[in-house]
Amino acid sequence: MIRHTVVFKLKHDAGSENELNFLRAAQKLVEIPTVNNFECFRQVSEKNNYDFGLSMDFNSKAGYQAYNEHPDHIQFVETLWIPEVVEFMEIDYVRYSES
Amino acid sequence: MIRHTVVFKLKHDAGSENELNFLRAAQKLVEIPTVNNFECFRQVSEKNNYDFGLSMDFNSKAGYQAYNEHPDHIQFVETLWIPEVVEFMEIDYVRYSES
Repeated sequence: MIRHTVVFKLKHDAGSENELNFLRAAQKLVEIPTVNNFECFRQVSEKNNYDFGLSMDFNSKAGYQAYNEHPDHIQFVETLWIPEVVEFMEIDYVRYSES
Repeated sequence: MIRHTVVFKLKHDAGSENELNFLRAAQKLVEIPTVNNFECFRQVSEKNNYDFGLSMDFNSKAGYQAYNEHPDHIQFVETLWIPEVVEFMEIDYVRYSES
């Protein structure tokens, strides 16, 4: 299992219609077939500068790659993510085990 | 539900006994009573500088606070986290919902 997460900050005003529209579009990424356990979050710690987060799990690297290359994901990145996200960080996890 | 996560980088060499000992101690935080869904991860994205992550869920702010104030957590922070972690970021999430 690979957990892909991203925290981000939008250029929109908090509570604005543009913010709402972005988050609605982001949540449609759940429909990409290899995505599991999709979650959309508000980021609430005051110890960083991000406002939202997405988290999703993939069963394999191939599933993760299929997501990255999926036309719906590419379109989302090009038409919404790049123009509307001002700051972000991707964090990907695999379960830790000794050895 | 509040999901508390932290990504971090240790001062130890990868695969060293010191690294192993730190991660074993970190995983004992699961025993603090208000902690749910505790997970210890390797961070595998090349788009950030962190090597490990912890994730845990709390049912309430009170449960989160109880964790922060728990003697086992305080001891872990003072004796291991502060001296052995060179870089970290805390990210806390609550589920996004409209309105």
